[in-house]
Amino acid sequence: MAQAFGFTVTATDGSARAGVIATPRGTIRTPAFMPVGTAATVKAMLPDSVAATGADILLGNTYHLMLRPGAGRIAALGGLHRFMNWDRPILTDSGGYQVMSLAGLRRLSEDGVRFRSHIDGSEHLLSPERSMEIQRQLGSDIVMAFDECTPFPAPEAAAAASMRLSMRWAARSRAAFGERPGHALFGIQQGSVYRDLRAESAAELAGIGFDGYAVGGLAVGEGQEAMFAVLDYAPAMLPADRPRYLMGVGKPDDIVGAVVRGIDMMDCVLPTRSGRTGQAFTRRGTVNLRNARHAADPRPLDEACTCPACRGYSRAYLHHVHRAGEIIAAMLVTWHNLHYYQELMAGLRTAIAAGRLAGFVAAFERLRAEGDIPPP
Amino acid sequence: MAQAFGFTVTATDGSARAGVIATPRGTIRTPAFMPVGTAATVKAMLPDSVAATGADILLGNTYHLMLRPGAGRIAALGGLHRFMNWDRPILTDSGGYQVMSLAGLRRLSEDGVRFRSHIDGSEHLLSPERSMEIQRQLGSDIVMAFDECTPFPAPEAAAAASMRLSMRWAARSRAAFGERPGHALFGIQQGSVYRDLRAESAAELAGIGFDGYAVGGLAVGEGQEAMFAVLDYAPAMLPADRPRYLMGVGKPDDIVGAVVRGIDMMDCVLPTRSGRTGQAFTRRGTVNLRNARHAADPRPLDEACTCPACRGYSRAYLHHVHRAGEIIAAMLVTWHNLHYYQELMAGLRTAIAAGRLAGFVAAFERLRAEGDIPPP
Repeated sequence: MAQAFGFTVTATDGSARAGVIATPRGTIRTPAFMPVGTAATVKAMLPDSVAATGADILLGNTYHLMLRPGAGRIAALGGLHRFMNWDRPILTDSGGYQVMSLAGLRRLSEDGVRFRSHIDGSEHLLSPERSMEIQRQLGSDIVMAFDECTPFPAPEAAAAASMRLSMRWAARSRAAFGERPGHALFGIQQGSVYRDLRAESAAELAGIGFDGYAVGGLAVGEGQEAMFAVLDYAPAMLPADRPRYLMGVGKPDDIVGAVVRGIDMMDCVLPTRSGRTGQAFTRRGTVNLRNARHAADPRPLDEACTCPACRGYSRAYLHHVHRAGEIIAAMLVTWHNLHYYQELMAGLRTAIAAGRLAGFVAAFERLRAEGDIPPP
Repeated sequence: MAQAFGFTVTATDGSARAGVIATPRGTIRTPAFMPVGTAATVKAMLPDSVAATGADILLGNTYHLMLRPGAGRIAALGGLHRFMNWDRPILTDSGGYQVMSLAGLRRLSEDGVRFRSHIDGSEHLLSPERSMEIQRQLGSDIVMAFDECTPFPAPEAAAAASMRLSMRWAARSRAAFGERPGHALFGIQQGSVYRDLRAESAAELAGIGFDGYAVGGLAVGEGQEAMFAVLDYAPAMLPADRPRYLMGVGKPDDIVGAVVRGIDMMDCVLPTRSGRTGQAFTRRGTVNLRNARHAADPRPLDEACTCPACRGYSRAYLHHVHRAGEIIAAMLVTWHNLHYYQELMAGLRTAIAAGRLAGFVAAFERLRAEGDIPPP
């Protein structure tokens, strides 16, 4: 019999929580960072390497997978886990965000969103029911309710209307999801930067009842200060005994700030996307490996890092392969970035468990303020 | 003290030989296939993965490395092995072939070749002396003499003049190389498709004296039949107690035919380049993974192959990631192709040692004639 989906908070430190999410496919240590595997691959990484960085779960994109190769195709091939050779948990988004940012000729109605594929122009519908069906076909472990990600900025009336549409869709998602032991359905709080709307949304979602709750509609251009202002109150509005997931976040300092404010899960394309452009995340901040200052530097990106890029290669090499457009450039820096993100999450978890999160955050900020090592 | 460079033939079967090349950086089992690591990377592969396919040695390109990042830079960083994180043997070509095929504004003289970089237009000279200096700076284990790869087709008089220039350059290469214990210098036979010129070239080279001998000027458009016709006599002209290296070859059936004719070493970009375009080499011939026939195929590329691409993924997945332009597509199929090539070499070595090469070749050809498995 499938193990039930469950969440246990094992330690708190201020608003921050450490815990574990149990799933039939394995345990997710929280706070968790989920690498993004948009098109059934975490770009430039083999799944074993993703696991080696310490990732317990990754995220797949419903919008991309429904268009190519198609959710029915993936179901016929045994589901997304088998298809992409990843046997640990997968969370899939609902497609609601990507359809509004990527698809052509969108028509949003109470029913859902009709759109044209950005790949081949074919016409599709995404609705709460269709999104639940696709995510079931993919076999994802954590399914996200179909919502509208309210654009930023939005006047309060527009944000309220958008949030209420998402709440009606949340109820339809819940009904369409049905009972699926071992699989979880997360609701998504909206309400933009309006506290009353966030509270109304949280109450609606709790009334429907979900296995976890996402804070949606952030990291959409409002900036870190405005995001943190919402995170100062929004997570606490959500049921404390369920995981809280901040979607699409973020830079390392966004992540630390979100965890301090009570977030348990995050995802972002930054470590993978930046790996392909030569932007490395380190304890001392961001390093642009394409910069000429690294061309003759025999030192590793970070002498304290144990990832393959730092153990085996100089900054000069990483600079060379990025300048030469070699695939190994993306492979190595993506690996480093994911390794750094997972080390950061492990550090946060350990600090919360030990009740010394404030000291951890101070050390995190101090080293970043020092900045990158100077050229030799 | 550095171990001397040495070659031992351990078995023969007809003209074919199996053996070992001893170097201070490790043993090379022959017949050997050398993956190409043009710009200090075997494209889309980590060095550990290249080694895992069974490669004992790889090839670096002098022309590319002298232009970017520069041989002096690599020397200052500890040499090519450390730079690219590969501690096994490396053979470097002389730059003679690439300068004539890639560089701009070439001026060939008795001295060498003046040219402009195809990367930034900067002016450079390649000569026997300069090529030896660069290959020393790179720290390569097997250094190639600087030659002119005679274009095909060439009238006999032109082929003779080109070959004799290469022989004068071979003597200058030998003198410039000097004595470098543990490092080897290979001469390159030219003479196009003219038997008398091949004999003259071989005698010249043997008179100069090298640690190994390459058959140059083949795989330049003459076709397999003409190439095999030259290989029917050219390798036997070279000293039997030294490795014989066929440069730039080739497809799997080229390799088998060359080994049957007495070749000990080969290199080619085909398995890596094809990996990036979705062309897979298998026991049953070439498979184009971009073809729609694979889109729903749950079977591995080759159910008998133990490479990561075949153990972990369906043809449908490999098709999907190639169509989607994902980096993992190049990573997986390159790995498969290099794995297949090394398995082929291992099979050839075992067959030669057992005196059953003819049976091996017959089985190789039979399975290829059967062709790829039909769609399910």
